[in-house]
Amino acid sequence: MPTYTLAFIADQIGGRVLGNGEVAIRGVSGIQEAQDGELTFLHREDYAPYLQETKASAVILGEGVAVTMPAIVVDNPQVAFAQAVQLFEEDLKTVYPPGERHPSAVISTTARLASDVYVGANSVVEDGVEIGPGSCLLPGAIVLRGSRLGAGVTIHPRVVIRERSVIGDRVIIQAGAVIGSDGFGFIRSSEGIQKVPQIGHVLIEDDVEIGANVCIDRAATGVTRIGAHAKIDNLVQIGHNVVVDEGSILCAQVGISGSTTIGREVTIGGQAGLVGHIRIGDKANVGAQAGVTRSVPSGEVVSGYPARPHRQARRYFAEIARLPSFLEKLRDLATRVAKLETKGDKSEDE
Amino acid sequence: MPTYTLAFIADQIGGRVLGNGEVAIRGVSGIQEAQDGELTFLHREDYAPYLQETKASAVILGEGVAVTMPAIVVDNPQVAFAQAVQLFEEDLKTVYPPGERHPSAVISTTARLASDVYVGANSVVEDGVEIGPGSCLLPGAIVLRGSRLGAGVTIHPRVVIRERSVIGDRVIIQAGAVIGSDGFGFIRSSEGIQKVPQIGHVLIEDDVEIGANVCIDRAATGVTRIGAHAKIDNLVQIGHNVVVDEGSILCAQVGISGSTTIGREVTIGGQAGLVGHIRIGDKANVGAQAGVTRSVPSGEVVSGYPARPHRQARRYFAEIARLPSFLEKLRDLATRVAKLETKGDKSEDE
Amino acid sequence: MPTYTLAFIADQIGGRVLGNGEVAIRGVSGIQEAQDGELTFLHREDYAPYLQETKASAVILGEGVAVTMPAIVVDNPQVAFAQAVQLFEEDLKTVYPPGERHPSAVISTTARLASDVYVGANSVVEDGVEIGPGSCLLPGAIVLRGSRLGAGVTIHPRVVIRERSVIGDRVIIQAGAVIGSDGFGFIRSSEGIQKVPQIGHVLIEDDVEIGANVCIDRAATGVTRIGAHAKIDNLVQIGHNVVVDEGSILCAQVGISGSTTIGREVTIGGQAGLVGHIRIGDKANVGAQAGVTRSVPSGEVVSGYPARPHRQARRYFAEIARLPSFLEKLRDLATRVAKLETKGDKSEDE
Repeated sequence: MPTYTLAFIADQIGGRVLGNGEVAIRGVSGIQEAQDGELTFLHREDYAPYLQETKASAVILGEGVAVTMPAIVVDNPQVAFAQAVQLFEEDLKTVYPPGERHPSAVISTTARLASDVYVGANSVVEDGVEIGPGSCLLPGAIVLRGSRLGAGVTIHPRVVIRERSVIGDRVIIQAGAVIGSDGFGFIRSSEGIQKVPQIGHVLIEDDVEIGANVCIDRAATGVTRIGAHAKIDNLVQIGHNVVVDEGSILCAQVGISGSTTIGREVTIGGQAGLVGHIRIGDKANVGAQAGVTRSVPSGEVVSGYPARPHRQARRYFAEIARLPSFLEKLRDLATRVAKLETKGDKSEDE
Repeated sequence: MPTYTLAFIADQIGGRVLGNGEVAIRGVSGIQEAQDGELTFLHREDYAPYLQETKASAVILGEGVAVTMPAIVVDNPQVAFAQAVQLFEEDLKTVYPPGERHPSAVISTTARLASDVYVGANSVVEDGVEIGPGSCLLPGAIVLRGSRLGAGVTIHPRVVIRERSVIGDRVIIQAGAVIGSDGFGFIRSSEGIQKVPQIGHVLIEDDVEIGANVCIDRAATGVTRIGAHAKIDNLVQIGHNVVVDEGSILCAQVGISGSTTIGREVTIGGQAGLVGHIRIGDKANVGAQAGVTRSVPSGEVVSGYPARPHRQARRYFAEIARLPSFLEKLRDLATRVAKLETKGDKSEDE
Repeated sequence: MPTYTLAFIADQIGGRVLGNGEVAIRGVSGIQEAQDGELTFLHREDYAPYLQETKASAVILGEGVAVTMPAIVVDNPQVAFAQAVQLFEEDLKTVYPPGERHPSAVISTTARLASDVYVGANSVVEDGVEIGPGSCLLPGAIVLRGSRLGAGVTIHPRVVIRERSVIGDRVIIQAGAVIGSDGFGFIRSSEGIQKVPQIGHVLIEDDVEIGANVCIDRAATGVTRIGAHAKIDNLVQIGHNVVVDEGSILCAQVGISGSTTIGREVTIGGQAGLVGHIRIGDKANVGAQAGVTRSVPSGEVVSGYPARPHRQARRYFAEIARLPSFLEKLRDLATRVAKLETKGDKSEDE
């Protein structure tokens, strides 16, 4: 990795140096793990005590924090740190030279690749595929007939892009993901289970990132669409004809059943599952492991199974925890009522 | 895609034309998404209003539905539409010519492939593999030593079929699936964790479909078996020595632990998990996200965690939702009992 | 498979023959599935009745069990059977000859492989990779630049090992696993969603086994670490900067969010999910499908969502099941209190 002076980094991320700007920074790390020569950051007040203990050589922090080590002061330490990390990121273009096609790659003569596209070892690019400038196919990537990839796309090893997929600019697809597999469409009839051919396709818009070993099924007819800037974590399942709209975030192992629509800037926690044919409104938030069986209004926060408004779900959990005390009260009341009844009977007897 | 007259399609799917049979159909689509030139279908009464709005040029529907646009009348519109879709499906044989073996494919000289088998780019077929007529290995498929595949099998890109797997006729395996990985067998002993070698195999019977990135583990000893006509969605996990019997349907991200047996025509909802060594009876239905800890009788419908009969699970959920009102009633009763007690005390005092 | 006499097997696994030691054994199997010529085992008393019915030709069992067929008596039948199975396991070295590199493999001239490393068809080994003696890369494996693999490592087909991963001795990685994919690091800012570069790496220590299609993300900065002897089942998701310590077992489809630490000898049941930034103590046990939202002390057993001590979670489930009877009691009490109140009123009226 490269080495920079603190002053150079401050200049790159638009911050102001406190202390010695000439200190040499050869890496970046979290405040607890950082070593001598590394730059770290402080973005939460409760981490302030670690400032005393960290082995880092410098820190990125907000205005008004007392500090003795060299520092860069910025408005948003978390965003600034992410920018600093970019300085230490390896440039893929030095590893995979633009325009190079590995001799072991199998590229159809009818595919149209921009001249600076890199195609890695043992990749396969079929007939009629189009790939825009600056894109990079790492080793073992497979792009089937008629798919179109935009500019600046990164396809990691062993990704499969099935036929007629459409992928926008600057999309990143992590290793092992499958784009455009057949949707799960069957009809149970008197003659058994009949497959419904899946003849639609997948559309992935600009600036989307797709995680490792994710599956996104092609539409039965029409399109399965992932909107611009959406981020999808590893091992997520997206059924046929699903729409995930702009800027939504799906955590690992989420499952979305067929024809469900996810609005804009929705967040879905890990392992949550959604039935088919429902709509999650814009900016809604679905809790981890939630089981969503109905549409969710915009802005709503839901959790649990079956998913309910989070406030209500939490109240249920709290009340379940109080069940033993309910039971005790019920027993106590029963005893007291029985006593009253006995007394009443006695009165009557008198 | 090809173009057909409506009359030709009606003839192919065994329906009767209403209106202009000469209208040209160049695609198929759902009633809401369909465009000019496309054929759609109406199979549920509550979708009837869309008939007024659809841009489709023709519709498949049942007897007795009023319609002004050209139509095909059939007994079962859903099944008929699936058949119509097949007319527009790309024929894999035109893309992957029967009998062709891509020069980059690595095929053992001891493998025995029917003459019309297609083997795609960068595929690997090891020693002693047998593949029946009409089968097709797409690019990057890997079939290890001694596996036997039947006739008309389609293996999508990057599927791995481990050694000695046995796969029937007309099986479809979607991209990235792993058939025959080692079962998860370990023994914690005084010397640490010891691996139990997994020397069994996987048997997949005729007409099964396996989803993308599915994992089916080989048996410890003996066989892990997927019965004929079973359909398994993406990212499902099948442990060693599991049996999934004929015609069962497993939705996405289901997990079946080792040695569990799934009967015939069982349906298991998405993300459901089953412990090992239990039996799910024929035609049982396991709800999405259910956690099944015990055997389930034939025909039973179960849901929730731990899974219970669905009627009971729903009652529990309903009663949990009524806990706040229980609590209120309990408080009210307590107040009234206290009042009665005070009154009684007063009476005694008098 | 090979054939051995029972006496030979007894000698190999350190047991004592009962009956005819010359019986020929050509395989191993469970007591219910075993066929003529096979060796089985009895490790639980409740399986003893199967001894009468089994078709096996011999059995491994503990001291003091009455048996009429040829047998091997040992201290721990389960461990002894696992050792017997090893005798019938195929030796990978006969299939993949040490030192052979398939001509279709793409191996960088700057990679340093021990002389006896096997590299399979269509594999890719990039610049600067190091692989220790006795290791084996099966067909389609991909190891990116600068990764270091130890001795006796087995990499199954289509595994992807991303750049700068460090992998210990005797590690086994099942097919389709992805080691070192980018962590899921994004910041929502006023200019949209910004990717945080993931420049750390993955460290897998000695004797770890990783399941099929597992995803282990590289650290944002620093390391994601899997401790020695840990065993991870299929389709598990491990987020960036997670630590799984020595000897822990993660069942299939488990999800661990970023920066969470799993202690030593922890067991996590299938489909359980853990939020980020928590710590699971040594020897803790997390139930299948549990949703863990807080740190868990050492030795604790937790289950349910949100995960609680198992005893408590079970009590909750039991009490939820008793809700209908609570309600009945509550109604009964209400009726009786109303009666008492009426009576009181009447008394006052008198």
